[in-house]
Amino acid sequence: MDEPITRMSTEECWEFLRRREFGRLAHHLADEVHIAPVNYAVDHDPATGRRSLLFRTAEGSKLLGVVMNPDVAFEVDEIVDEHATSVVMRGRARRLEEDEEHRAENVPLRPWVATEKWNVVEVDVTEISGRRFELARPWQHIIPD
Amino acid sequence: MDEPITRMSTEECWEFLRRREFGRLAHHLADEVHIAPVNYAVDHDPATGRRSLLFRTAEGSKLLGVVMNPDVAFEVDEIVDEHATSVVMRGRARRLEEDEEHRAENVPLRPWVATEKWNVVEVDVTEISGRRFELARPWQHIIPD
Repeated sequence: MDEPITRMSTEECWEFLRRREFGRLAHHLADEVHIAPVNYAVDHDPATGRRSLLFRTAEGSKLLGVVMNPDVAFEVDEIVDEHATSVVMRGRARRLEEDEEHRAENVPLRPWVATEKWNVVEVDVTEISGRRFELARPWQHIIPD
Repeated sequence: MDEPITRMSTEECWEFLRRREFGRLAHHLADEVHIAPVNYAVDHDPATGRRSLLFRTAEGSKLLGVVMNPDVAFEVDEIVDEHATSVVMRGRARRLEEDEEHRAENVPLRPWVATEKWNVVEVDVTEISGRRFELARPWQHIIPD
């Protein structure tokens, strides 16, 4: 029988992230935890090998949260038939300064919807782990329509 | 032109949740924010009209986190072609007592993978909002393979 859960290597996690563009950011806002869907890109500096996540956010609660408390978590997943993959990261977020924002131009990162003003946030990933699940879904037939 | 973002009503949000089974839980763990994929079900008490989320979790950080600090956020989304939908909730989580765990038997909630021991956690939803996005994805052609 296949093992139901397989741990992914760090390289497999980054490769999974590089091929996707949509994740969920969990962040603090004062004493609360918040979650929001974001589109992201992996920025990779070939000189140093350093990889980080970039995303754009409008002025508002997400940005306010990471400026006040940079501790964030991020998740990207995919379910295809009976196979689920989830990569989870933790890290430190910071708003890029104006003279760094050009980095967002060099990666496939564009806002999904037009809005007036964007800031670029970088997440320096301190922990990354990924798991693949073989789903049994014994209850599939009872999900209500 | 279509509006790029549409707000969903509370009823639309719950209906979206009821038809799905996979989301992401953001929770505190001491001073950190964590995120984890979970499968969930909506529990609906027809007598009171009260709705909440139920999920199972093994002993570990998620459970420890919500016992220590019940403030959580939860997100469920779907992307089909150029249409993205995301429902975001905030609420209070608690572990169900043994004499309440039978509630998990009455909803389509089963662990995806076999493990030794499960607890049932309920999220009492205090805020719920949903958005539909029409995606432009002008950068689609430049996503690396």
